[in-house]
Amino acid sequence: MNKFALWIIAAFMSAAFALSQTPQQTEPPAWQWDWNRIQSVVGKVRAGKDLTPKSWPGNNRVAAALSFDLDNETVSLRDGNLSPSELSQGEYGSRVAVGRILALLDKHQIKASFFVPAVVARLYPDSVKQIVAKGHEIGMHGWIHERNSLLTEQQERDLMRRSYTTLREAAGVSPVGIRTPSWDYSPWTMKIIREMKLLYDSSLMADERPYEVLFEGKPTGVVELPVEWIMDDYPYFGMNRFSTIRPHIAPEDVLDIWRKEFDVALEEASLFVLTMHPHIIGHRSRIVILDKLISHMKSRPGVWFARHDEVAKAAAGQLRRQ
Amino acid sequence: MNKFALWIIAAFMSAAFALSQTPQQTEPPAWQWDWNRIQSVVGKVRAGKDLTPKSWPGNNRVAAALSFDLDNETVSLRDGNLSPSELSQGEYGSRVAVGRILALLDKHQIKASFFVPAVVARLYPDSVKQIVAKGHEIGMHGWIHERNSLLTEQQERDLMRRSYTTLREAAGVSPVGIRTPSWDYSPWTMKIIREMKLLYDSSLMADERPYEVLFEGKPTGVVELPVEWIMDDYPYFGMNRFSTIRPHIAPEDVLDIWRKEFDVALEEASLFVLTMHPHIIGHRSRIVILDKLISHMKSRPGVWFARHDEVAKAAAGQLRRQ
Amino acid sequence: MNKFALWIIAAFMSAAFALSQTPQQTEPPAWQWDWNRIQSVVGKVRAGKDLTPKSWPGNNRVAAALSFDLDNETVSLRDGNLSPSELSQGEYGSRVAVGRILALLDKHQIKASFFVPAVVARLYPDSVKQIVAKGHEIGMHGWIHERNSLLTEQQERDLMRRSYTTLREAAGVSPVGIRTPSWDYSPWTMKIIREMKLLYDSSLMADERPYEVLFEGKPTGVVELPVEWIMDDYPYFGMNRFSTIRPHIAPEDVLDIWRKEFDVALEEASLFVLTMHPHIIGHRSRIVILDKLISHMKSRPGVWFARHDEVAKAAAGQLRRQ
Amino acid sequence: MNKFALWIIAAFMSAAFALSQTPQQTEPPAWQWDWNRIQSVVGKVRAGKDLTPKSWPGNNRVAAALSFDLDNETVSLRDGNLSPSELSQGEYGSRVAVGRILALLDKHQIKASFFVPAVVARLYPDSVKQIVAKGHEIGMHGWIHERNSLLTEQQERDLMRRSYTTLREAAGVSPVGIRTPSWDYSPWTMKIIREMKLLYDSSLMADERPYEVLFEGKPTGVVELPVEWIMDDYPYFGMNRFSTIRPHIAPEDVLDIWRKEFDVALEEASLFVLTMHPHIIGHRSRIVILDKLISHMKSRPGVWFARHDEVAKAAAGQLRRQ
Repeated sequence: MNKFALWIIAAFMSAAFALSQTPQQTEPPAWQWDWNRIQSVVGKVRAGKDLTPKSWPGNNRVAAALSFDLDNETVSLRDGNLSPSELSQGEYGSRVAVGRILALLDKHQIKASFFVPAVVARLYPDSVKQIVAKGHEIGMHGWIHERNSLLTEQQERDLMRRSYTTLREAAGVSPVGIRTPSWDYSPWTMKIIREMKLLYDSSLMADERPYEVLFEGKPTGVVELPVEWIMDDYPYFGMNRFSTIRPHIAPEDVLDIWRKEFDVALEEASLFVLTMHPHIIGHRSRIVILDKLISHMKSRPGVWFARHDEVAKAAAGQLRRQ
Repeated sequence: MNKFALWIIAAFMSAAFALSQTPQQTEPPAWQWDWNRIQSVVGKVRAGKDLTPKSWPGNNRVAAALSFDLDNETVSLRDGNLSPSELSQGEYGSRVAVGRILALLDKHQIKASFFVPAVVARLYPDSVKQIVAKGHEIGMHGWIHERNSLLTEQQERDLMRRSYTTLREAAGVSPVGIRTPSWDYSPWTMKIIREMKLLYDSSLMADERPYEVLFEGKPTGVVELPVEWIMDDYPYFGMNRFSTIRPHIAPEDVLDIWRKEFDVALEEASLFVLTMHPHIIGHRSRIVILDKLISHMKSRPGVWFARHDEVAKAAAGQLRRQ
Repeated sequence: MNKFALWIIAAFMSAAFALSQTPQQTEPPAWQWDWNRIQSVVGKVRAGKDLTPKSWPGNNRVAAALSFDLDNETVSLRDGNLSPSELSQGEYGSRVAVGRILALLDKHQIKASFFVPAVVARLYPDSVKQIVAKGHEIGMHGWIHERNSLLTEQQERDLMRRSYTTLREAAGVSPVGIRTPSWDYSPWTMKIIREMKLLYDSSLMADERPYEVLFEGKPTGVVELPVEWIMDDYPYFGMNRFSTIRPHIAPEDVLDIWRKEFDVALEEASLFVLTMHPHIIGHRSRIVILDKLISHMKSRPGVWFARHDEVAKAAAGQLRRQ
Repeated sequence: MNKFALWIIAAFMSAAFALSQTPQQTEPPAWQWDWNRIQSVVGKVRAGKDLTPKSWPGNNRVAAALSFDLDNETVSLRDGNLSPSELSQGEYGSRVAVGRILALLDKHQIKASFFVPAVVARLYPDSVKQIVAKGHEIGMHGWIHERNSLLTEQQERDLMRRSYTTLREAAGVSPVGIRTPSWDYSPWTMKIIREMKLLYDSSLMADERPYEVLFEGKPTGVVELPVEWIMDDYPYFGMNRFSTIRPHIAPEDVLDIWRKEFDVALEEASLFVLTMHPHIIGHRSRIVILDKLISHMKSRPGVWFARHDEVAKAAAGQLRRQ
């Protein structure tokens, strides 16, 4: 094959790669849509009833739900970055970070939730066992951190079912909640969540309070424990040498942001959900700020540290109230 | 259709998408232009007469004009990001942030301006009613946050008229000012603003003081209340997972920047315009710095907090002076 | 013309645009080069003799050379961003920032250097006159901030000559130094600088001390006053909404960086060169840190604030020493 | 050749360039892989036995291994950025920064390791001699900072052998360790490292403690001294004007990160590896934070400052223990 032919193929592969990574421009542009189209797109999945209880268990003012998405190598695999050096960054998650996090949670006597891609549960069965043995929750987090919005409905359903079964086998208990990988959402993600009768989802961002999810305008009975990029360690600390993603906020400044978020959550007597990743927050210079954050939270009265499933159950009590 | 054909199509779609997002290289490059071309491009829209009054109403030294662009889901829709999770970030604007902002403005007894895309006014009529009921201003902000520079003159005019009518119906009062979406500006934006007899624009950056806009070298009578990326919450706090846009300045550092801007504005006895977005500034860790900023401003004598229309009217008094 | 044809054209234009903005991959890759090729590329322009004098005029320890590149609209024009809103950001440079900077330099009784694209000198003749009237230097900075590395040798020479003449007419005095736009450097930039018998260049980064430039291994007699991105306001404060360039370091942190650079320069008894841009540093929240920086520098004994031409003349005295 | 033909060629070259810079999407996507494929990719190179000794030489608690990758112009050459201004940034590394770093290490009486691309060793033989004369280590760092993952196995082997010979000639001693350029890793990098009988590698990230590398599941006897982007100056201070890479964390904040990393390393009685680059850390405003960091480390009891080869030898003592 000559060089020119290689170039042509390279050009098309490169464009196809870029295309696969980028959300597509709608056709026609949104300013040309009629009102039905706007309403149907915006109304697909919406926030319904506020599910904040009058008070949280133990008569506490605020629920503090810490979570760790144990991605390890799966994001690299999904993106096709197969370098052993790149993959070793994920290996760090189970080899070093999980132990450090479990020790910290033990020290503070806190239970938390770990969302685990099924592939990680199979590659690192000991991590899952340690997590469960300490009384923490294992929740769903995709098969291999796939982008659900690039799948057909049936592919997404198959992967979710396979993930469910794999997690149940690894953890010895059925998962009751999901956090979608990268918080991606296809038009049928919520439909499949209902089919699987999951108690809660933790991937949407319409509120900080727990709420009931509406699907195509109708109540689903699914509890949403909302997330936010602000309350995630990745936007501040992520590093990808092939893009320009860099750690760009100092740990002490991230601590300040999270402390402010918590202080208002407490004042508002509501919910505080924090998303972290062992291979990101588990590093020496970052675990110390998580320690400081928890110490700050524990110094205030009225805080209920709880697993996502416990929070969802407490919130679900509001579903049946008028 | 075979895979190779799909690749070819993907390549062209990808390139077309990139093209639609990027300002075009002029042909020929600018160093080859003759002087007339340079002058005509630079001279299209310029800053004219400084409209700072001797003193602001109430004999105050500085006018402080706070504004909130209530974009909600429109930027996502415009960019074709239709994921329910992505859209839920916009839903947060009206569901959570508007209430928090209105309470803060109430607490400080301040009136402000809200620039609202017409689609948001229709999707969230209650937000518009609450804003108006509290005595705040509703200003124009496009139909669906479209890029005016990608439209023909007639398309831009049609959307501006439709937006005007929609806002008037939702707010019960006619808007008198505009902030263009993303501060984009086509060669005929100012022409249409004059046709619509708007009092003011707030999208240009040639000064911090209010000024009269010149169009093709001639005074327009339109008051400019200039903006700046420095005085906008988005460049510091914006997050787009498909690009590398991240929140990269800590809230306390943003507070310091805005406080410095205000202090010099007060010293110079001029104007302070701050642009924010409910779904960005309305989060717990950020609303507290807006609270601190307003408290700082109120601690200084000589500050007139006012809506953009009030500031524009005070500045317009200078139009007729020699 | 049908839509498919438009897509094809768009694809090629987009790729060509990307190509024109990106340095080209050498062919073959560098690891395949022979030693002669490596040496000839690296050896094209090099740092020669250290020109730091025993002491600076007035028996001072350190020379502090502040400079302002008055780009205004030229970078936007060069990049084909012709939006009136974008251009108004450049207009701010002469309308607001130059006055603020001149007042600050006056207050501190300091002379500085302004590097001015010739197009700016023609669009804003009053800025040039004010700068000259205050005793500051006007230096060359390209015709319209063009990328010299995208020009042929003759095109680059023609633009440099035209810029020289235009600046001389605007300033009433011949420029003696150059800072290339964006610090770009073609293989023949230094050759043309010598032809034009300029005293100094301020665009290279091999040292912090002044040095004699070597061209193809031979001394040129041209004094280099080296620059660095660390000592430039743009990398910290730049904003480009079409890329992900954002202001991402707080002004007080930039002040700390520049203060540290100065403190070591003073300790080393050498040179401190700071590059700024009126439309960037001239904003309210930034001019105050420049004020603080100058105050800090003036609080230390042994600092000679000087124009680039004065520093270059003092350094040139070392050219003839053995 | 007409313009249209140029455009077509430009389009393909541009795409090919992008392709050569980006890791490729695997085909098919990872969620379609069977379990063998996942295991074989993840299992290629893994972390084996923890090699932390009971105590470090001198009965110290923690080993502190500082390293400097002397890249100078090689990254620019590899990426095809041949502008004399760009290259002068690399020249700074040997002309200015190496001397400043050697003086700092002398002041603190510390030995460190310098990883040197062979091309740099030939371009700057004096730098190598100075480094060796002061008792520091010279380690391998590629031929011209090439991307090993873009080479065939034989090309990678040839360049590694040529680099080894060149370094030995320049330093007068054989290198015993390697840090791969950019920490890239091909599937056969570890195979070649074993063939060359190197004592250690310092390019992987599965732990902070020293460990034995496993290759395809089997112990290699190669000691890994793991690195991390957190412990590298480039992610915080790097600058590339053609991308959006910018210095975006203030030096004092970087100092705080590294100090936190060290404090936990000391507490855990383990290893602290810091990767720096002379042309990055050697600048005035950054060398002062390295000085502060070392002073902080020296203020704590139980710190063994050592070269990478010394640390690797101490760790290798654990290889033979059960």
